[in-house]
This record gives sequence, structure tokens and C-alpha cells, in this order.
Amino acid sequence: MTIYLGPNRYGKAETRVVRVTRDGARHAVTDLNVSVALTGDFAGTHLTGDNTGLLTTDAQKNTVYAFAREHGIASAEAFALRLARHFTGHPSVSRARVEVEAYAWDRLGDHSFARRGQEVRTATAVREGDAEWLVCGLRDLVVANTTDSEFWGYDKDRYTTLPETRDRILATAVDARWRHLSAGDGTDWDASYDGTRQALLDAFTGTYSYSLQQTLYAMGRTALEKRPELAEVRLSLPNKHHFLVDLAPFGLDNPDEVYVAADRPYGLIEGTVLREGAPDAGPAWE
Amino acid sequence: MTIYLGPNRYGKAETRVVRVTRDGARHAVTDLNVSVALTGDFAGTHLTGDNTGLLTTDAQKNTVYAFAREHGIASAEAFALRLARHFTGHPSVSRARVEVEAYAWDRLGDHSFARRGQEVRTATAVREGDAEWLVCGLRDLVVANTTDSEFWGYDKDRYTTLPETRDRILATAVDARWRHLSAGDGTDWDASYDGTRQALLDAFTGTYSYSLQQTLYAMGRTALEKRPELAEVRLSLPNKHHFLVDLAPFGLDNPDEVYVAADRPYGLIEGTVLREGAPDAGPAWE
Amino acid sequence: MTIYLGPNRYGKAETRVVRVTRDGARHAVTDLNVSVALTGDFAGTHLTGDNTGLLTTDAQKNTVYAFAREHGIASAEAFALRLARHFTGHPSVSRARVEVEAYAWDRLGDHSFARRGQEVRTATAVREGDAEWLVCGLRDLVVANTTDSEFWGYDKDRYTTLPETRDRILATAVDARWRHLSAGDGTDWDASYDGTRQALLDAFTGTYSYSLQQTLYAMGRTALEKRPELAEVRLSLPNKHHFLVDLAPFGLDNPDEVYVAADRPYGLIEGTVLREGAPDAGPAWE
Amino acid sequence: MTIYLGPNRYGKAETRVVRVTRDGARHAVTDLNVSVALTGDFAGTHLTGDNTGLLTTDAQKNTVYAFAREHGIASAEAFALRLARHFTGHPSVSRARVEVEAYAWDRLGDHSFARRGQEVRTATAVREGDAEWLVCGLRDLVVANTTDSEFWGYDKDRYTTLPETRDRILATAVDARWRHLSAGDGTDWDASYDGTRQALLDAFTGTYSYSLQQTLYAMGRTALEKRPELAEVRLSLPNKHHFLVDLAPFGLDNPDEVYVAADRPYGLIEGTVLREGAPDAGPAWE
Repeated sequence: MTIYLGPNRYGKAETRVVRVTRDGARHAVTDLNVSVALTGDFAGTHLTGDNTGLLTTDAQKNTVYAFAREHGIASAEAFALRLARHFTGHPSVSRARVEVEAYAWDRLGDHSFARRGQEVRTATAVREGDAEWLVCGLRDLVVANTTDSEFWGYDKDRYTTLPETRDRILATAVDARWRHLSAGDGTDWDASYDGTRQALLDAFTGTYSYSLQQTLYAMGRTALEKRPELAEVRLSLPNKHHFLVDLAPFGLDNPDEVYVAADRPYGLIEGTVLREGAPDAGPAWE
Repeated sequence: MTIYLGPNRYGKAETRVVRVTRDGARHAVTDLNVSVALTGDFAGTHLTGDNTGLLTTDAQKNTVYAFAREHGIASAEAFALRLARHFTGHPSVSRARVEVEAYAWDRLGDHSFARRGQEVRTATAVREGDAEWLVCGLRDLVVANTTDSEFWGYDKDRYTTLPETRDRILATAVDARWRHLSAGDGTDWDASYDGTRQALLDAFTGTYSYSLQQTLYAMGRTALEKRPELAEVRLSLPNKHHFLVDLAPFGLDNPDEVYVAADRPYGLIEGTVLREGAPDAGPAWE
Repeated sequence: MTIYLGPNRYGKAETRVVRVTRDGARHAVTDLNVSVALTGDFAGTHLTGDNTGLLTTDAQKNTVYAFAREHGIASAEAFALRLARHFTGHPSVSRARVEVEAYAWDRLGDHSFARRGQEVRTATAVREGDAEWLVCGLRDLVVANTTDSEFWGYDKDRYTTLPETRDRILATAVDARWRHLSAGDGTDWDASYDGTRQALLDAFTGTYSYSLQQTLYAMGRTALEKRPELAEVRLSLPNKHHFLVDLAPFGLDNPDEVYVAADRPYGLIEGTVLREGAPDAGPAWE
Repeated sequence: MTIYLGPNRYGKAETRVVRVTRDGARHAVTDLNVSVALTGDFAGTHLTGDNTGLLTTDAQKNTVYAFAREHGIASAEAFALRLARHFTGHPSVSRARVEVEAYAWDRLGDHSFARRGQEVRTATAVREGDAEWLVCGLRDLVVANTTDSEFWGYDKDRYTTLPETRDRILATAVDARWRHLSAGDGTDWDASYDGTRQALLDAFTGTYSYSLQQTLYAMGRTALEKRPELAEVRLSLPNKHHFLVDLAPFGLDNPDEVYVAADRPYGLIEGTVLREGAPDAGPAWE
């Protein structure tokens, strides 16, 4: 019997770094959570405990802080790329994956801020050899349509009791990630993020929907149509069920007014929308 | 040895109700989490399992849904009061406490919404006999000042190593509750909430602070000054520490730029600010 | 209009301290989460930002670590008491409240352990002047009876639709706190904890129940009967509803076999059981 | 520009089912959380909202409950397999993935139980055509060694400040999944789970470690050595850092006694250990 080491990686996860830019009286805040994962020649560490060549996760954390000072944080995307390039410069490292979560703060004053608390913006840079990939995204953006959603025409098996509906609430917490055609430095990452976010919302809002799958595809397609810099969009959409309450036992009707917001179980719709001819994803999603 | 039953209460917690108002094409959404707690003559249920006089928590849940249909939800506050009045009408119930959490949604279109995701608005109505109390509030409003905060002059005991500072980040997650002078129906609850929230933010932003305690008191005082309908403000403010990173080992300075956002431990500052001559709080806070 | 500062306190929350005892090859682990809250003469800090007399929360944290070294941690209770006594020795402090959470680890070997993961044990010491109170407890102990639970005979109002039942699942997550008659140093805190926990479980298991309230009272009463060192027990018991699934649409019966474990809403039953003649609780529960 | 639909799946997530077996007075409880994801010919649903051929997630939920009654739940693994086989029988479904989480309950009496609260046991069955895969696992099993862990010999770059150590605490929360050579019905799933869990613990306990990577590999290797029914083990191990507290400012030494249990950041070590000649993983891990 032979047993062997397969794919592996390691790194420092969730380094929380806040950078304050103090240009005169008007400050700015960047608030990130950075996770690094390195792949490379680390068989010795696994097999014999020989740590030669190993870059400690503690040093990775230190690098995050030092780079925030040395280079600033132009954007989550640029920072992730810079770190990925740095770590692949280490001799033992063949691939670096740097995931960044960014928390938005709204301005209250010159040096005062409130955390927005809506979606979390994400940026993941992957570098291997000279190749780079960038996957951006957002999560926890909770949206709802109170009409223009139907659901009918589905299969009925022995266990199907759901009544068909011509009008329902459609609600979800958008978890979207989009792969860029290129990780090139010319992109205006903030504009790209804002534009993609808006495309997703426009599609959610504007789609007369016969299923959450249809809405998912419309969101991915719209993002690709509006943002030529994107190669692929992946969406994971929980169907946050809102059930109409039966008020008949209390002598009341319920003309699509009063709903239960359910926790579990929930439908979960996952899908990928791609641009034809897009370059290979490589290790971007791993 | 004699053992006896002391204070007790029961009710249905976390009934999630969403109400859609459909006035033509332009819809509105109210999204609440309602918790009821009833006090009264329930010794039999505890001592012998005799449930005579007990209003089931299931019926309490049903009442929440039915009232949303019968009466609508003018505001979290009005809804909490209406429910509290209803439940104290039950013969066995001497006191009702109804806590409501409200989740704000921003409009994306006529029938499309995004959950705001910032603070949660709260409203608690307590009724006992003919007396009523209303405690409103908010939680999870994360704010930060990047300057105008000092901390020095404190006691130094054997275990004190914290260096004094003339400039630090001051950040907290505001958890505030305010008791109204009256639960009277004439109040514009939305205006009162918006005004109190703004007063708290203004005080946080505008206070040159020598301690989070000082900021806390300023927040409570400002709310009472700006909102004559309030009797008392209670604040619980975690000091969300941001530690300046020591970059010297890497040959770098750190001129108040790069910080660690720490999770635990955290300072926790709790305090009450009152208006002189305010009526007694009774069971409002219990 | 006069506005004034009311009750207030502050301290370091959630200091995570792990102490390893290395008596030869066989080690032991104590794993605590310590929160301190101090009350006293801190008006200056609030009103003018004058921090004279203020013991920093950073020093409180340091004290937790230093005391773990200097004095060891005989038990969560003894450690909480020792810290409370220390902090009330500071001139500005009139009252100290020290809350400790303890996480149990099971032994896997001489120096290997697995976190048990069941309930969290709690101990809160309060000291004011020369008076001391100790409140111990546990939380998150999830238990269920699959029979010997009925629920009927309750009031039926317009909103009552719940059918009466002569057999149901009764499940809860026990959150219990018990006040000791004395915080005296002679108590065997581990034995007291184990005995009280067992009394609560025995009462839960052994009570033929007509309501969760009845079970709650039996649990409190049994703990007081079995543990003469206790003055009072407070219980907060969510009714973790298990609903029998209606399988009739699929041509199946369901003879009390298949249940939905629901998340929200849930009943919440809270109650206090006391020993007659027990000393006053003072600020023990605040 | 052409845009097209890529890989997609959908299903009902987190159906909570509790099954009580009542063989005379002595009951048993099975407590599961079941998530289904179906892949197949669902382009119409995405592209045009034509739901022909779609099996609703509501029906999937119903199937979970009905199967619990019709077939019982012999084990999480057997239940997952049975459901996967059922769903791939639906004409539109080419692949079914059924993930089950199982929560263990300890017996307190004939019909009384306490939730164990330690690790969660997982079982995932994937079926496509006639091929089946089974991935079992556990998560949230928190373990620690208080000695026999060194860490030194690693690379030192500009950002490396971590001192080498010859003795440290090694703690992690084990997240392990193991793929079976066959999903065949002959396996004693409970024995396989218990044996694999024990092998992981034995390797964690018994490995004198120079890195968490080495411990990870030892855990995977031991599981494969002890359990011939396994093809592959994947481990994700957060390094739950315990930092020795510097007590020198207080005039105290700290001979490996008092530690901070840190939350973030943490090292994250991920790796796969395989048996040579194991069959292809197919879609087992997707």
C-alpha cells in the first residue's frame, strides 16, 4: 500500500488591516480582511517536518501590514495582485492565492465614518508563474422583488405539493463572483465593481421572473453584456422563501400582504454564465 | 425548606413577519422580528401543569400575523404598542412586553428593494394595567473617528502598560436604547427615530474625545437635548480597538496609517443618561 | 432642562486566557473567557474627559493574565472571586463584576485534549464593599425528551389554532444560572457545578411534563433541593419546537416518527425559583 | 458577443429532519440536516423560464421527510445514498449530490437525550448515471497538544519576525473529509466513521510535530492505513494560535503556562492524502 501527499496549500487567513489616509483634514479609510494561500514545494514540511523553504504564515501577515504602509491600498484588487506577485517571488512558492474582503464605510464627516453594512466586496488574485487571474465579487447583498415573479409549469412527482403561483415574492442574498478577462493593471477596479454591482441589481430588478434560475442567468448575462472586461460570472443565490400566511382560521383574507420570512430550509440556485472565447479559468476558482 | 416560584414570563420569540403594501404599482415593505413576553397568573402552569388561563405562544405568533393584516404596521413602535395592549386584555396577563426589531430596505424600483444592512432599529412596548412604556433603539451601527480622540491621565497600577496617546482611532458598534417620556399615540415615531439616530451620530462625530465614556455621555446628552420626547438613553459601546502596527522590524515607520482591527478582547462601556424629572422607568427595561 | 449621568460601568470584555498546568508529563488545561465590569467614581471621565482614577481596560486584561500566573486558576469561580476582590481594592472602584466562561476539554492523552463542545460553564463574581455574590451557571446544553410531554387545557382565544396534544417532543437549550447563598471560599466549586448540572438534567429527564414551564420549575426546585448551597435558580428555556410532519399528501402516516426541527419562532420560558429566607440578591444579577 | 450558460445546479438546502425510533420504551433519535443539489437538463428554466422537467426544491424537501418515514434512517451515509439514487431517477436529473450533517445525541434515559455538541458528522453522496461516490467527514472537532510541537528551520525573509520555538501549543479545529473507495451498501458506516475519527485523533495525539502540515499529513496517512475502505482524505486545519503572554512587565516569568487564545488571523493548512491506485474522484468533491 502506498500513500502519498496530494494537492496542498497553506497561508495566513483573515488578517484584518485598516489603513487611514490622512490628506489634510479629510481622511479616508480602507478596511480589509486578507487571506493568503500558497502552493509550492512543501513536501518536506508535510513528510518529515523539514521546514526549509517554508515562508511562515506570520511573515505573510507581516507582509500585509508592511505593504499597506509601503505601497498603500489603491483598491482591494490592486492590493491582492501586489501581494500575489510578491509571494510568488519566494523560491518555494509556485502559486499564490490572495483573497480580500473589503468593508465599505460611508463618510459622516472629515474624519468620521459609519460602516455601510450592506454587501461585502471581494477580490481574489491568483498568480502562477507569469499567469495571473482576478476574481472579484460581492456577497450578502439581500434583495427582494414583491411582484413580477411567477413559478409554475414544473414537474409534479409523488412528493410535489407546492401550488403553482402567478405572483410571489422573490428574495435572495446575492453571492456573486466574476472573473476578469485579464488581471492587467489598467483596469479601474472601482468603476468595474460599481458597474458590475449595478448590472446585477438592474437585472434582478428588471427581470420578470418565472424562476430564480431565470433571474440568476439574467444577472450573469447582464453583467457580461455591460462589462466587457469580464469573462465569467458565478452566482450562488439562496431562495429566501417568503410564505403567504394563511389567515383564514382567523376569519381574514390575505391578499398578498402578510408573509413569513423563513430561515431554513431554503432553495439554493448556483450557476455560471460565460462569455464565449474567454480564456481558460486555470486555477482562478480553486 | 420551602422553595417557591419567583418572577417569570413566557412568550413567542422571533416571529418574522414581512408586510407588503401594494398601493398601485409602487409597493412598500415592512420587515420585522417580533418577540412577546407575558407576565401574569401562571403559577398553575409551573406548579402543577394546569394550563388554565394560559395563552399559547402559538396563538401569540398568530396574533402577530393577523394584526399585520387587520391593522397594518404603521411603525415598529405602533405595532409593538398595539400588540402589548391586546395581550394585556387577556384575563391572566398582568404585563406584556413586545420587542420588535425592524430591518430597513432601500428602494431599488417600484417593487424592488435591497436590505440596507446597517443598524437594526428596535422598539419595545411594555404595558401593565393602564400604564405603558416605550423603549426605542438601534444596534450594530458601527462608527469610527480617525482622529480627535486622546486617551491619557488614567491611573497606573502594577499591571498598567498601555502608553498614553494624544491621537487614536475611536471606533464602536453603537447599541443604544432610549425611553420615551410617554408611549402616547401622538408621536411621529419615524421622525423621533431618525432624529435620535442623527443626534447620536452628530455627538459621536462632533465630540473631541478623551475617553469613550466621554463620547458615550455626549451621545446620550445630545439625544436628550435634541429630542424632548425622551426621558432616558442607555448606551452600550464596545471599544473596537484599532492598534497601530509596529512596522519598525521591517525598517518602516507607521505615521498613524496602518492598524490592526482587533476582535477580542474589547473594552465595553455602558452608561445611562437621564433627564431630570423624568417619570419612573417602571418595568420598561426589565 | 437638566441632564445627568445615571448608572454606568466599564471594563475589558472577553479576555481569552488558557492556562496549562505541567505537573510532569501529565498536563492539564484551563480555558476561560473573562469579562470585567467596574462601577465607581468615574463621573469625570464621562463629563469632562478627566481620566484621573480610571483603571484602564488594558490593565484589567493584563491583570487576568498575570493572576493566571501568580495564583493559578483553581476554578472559574475562585478566579472570578479573586479578580473581583482585586479590582475593588482600586480606590475609584466601588463594585466589580467578573464574568467567566469556561470551556471544558476532555483528555485524549497526557498532553492531548479535545474540546468537549457541550455546555459552557459560567461563573460571575460580584463584590461591593465587603459583600460578595457568586452566580454560577451553564448555557447551550441542548436536551430533549421524546415522550412524557403533553400540552393541553390552555385558553383558546380567536387566534388559537394549536391542537392539544397528549404526546410531543420537548426540547430546549438550557440556560441556567444559580446564585450561591455565600461566595465563601470553602465551597468545592467543581462538585457544586457537577451536582447542580446533574440535578437540572435529572429533573428534565424525570419530569412528566404538561408544559415547559412545569419542567422549568421542576428543574429549579430540584437544584435547590439537591444543593443546599444555592439560594436561587434562574432559567431561560427556549422551546425548540419539533413539529410532526404531515405525510398524508404522500399517502403515509406519521406515528410520531418524523419531525421538523424548527429554528424560528420559538417559545421562550423564563423563570426564577427561590429558597425561602435566602439572603438578598443585591447586585448579583445586574 | 455570445454568452452562454455554464455549469449549474439547484436544490433544497438545510432540511432539518429529526427521526424518533420508538421500539418499546427505549427510544432513539436521529438528527440530520440534509441539502440536495441536482444537475441536469435545466437550460429552459434558466434561459426562458420554462420549468418543464424541473423538480421543485419543495418536493425535494418533502422527499426527505417521506423517506425518513418510508425507509428510516439507518445512517447518514445510507440516507444520503438512498436520496441520491432517488433523485437521479428523475428524467431531467443527470447528477444528484446529497449532503447530510448529523448531530449526535447522548442518551440520558430511555427517552431523554443531550446533544453532544462536539464535532458534526458529515456524509455526502454523489450519483451520476450508475456511478456513485461517497465522501464522509467531520468538522468542528477542536483538539490541542500542549507539548511535542516545535516550529523552526523555516525561511527568514525581510518580513519574518517569528522566533523559532522548540515547544508550543498546537491546536486546531479538525475539518476532515474522506472519500470511500466504493459507495457500496456493504459498508458498516458507523464503524467506518468511528474508526476514521479515532485514527485522526490518534495521529494528532501521537505525532511529535515540527509543523501543522506534518500533523495534517500524519492524520491523513493514519486514516488511510487504518481504514482500507478509504481512497483519499482531505483536511483543512486552522492553526488556532495560542501565544505565550509576556508577563515580564509585571515582574513575572511565564514558563509555558499562560497563553492568549487568538481569534484572527490564523494559519490555515489544507492538504490531501491519497491511496495509490484509488479510483478517480469524479465529481465527488465538486
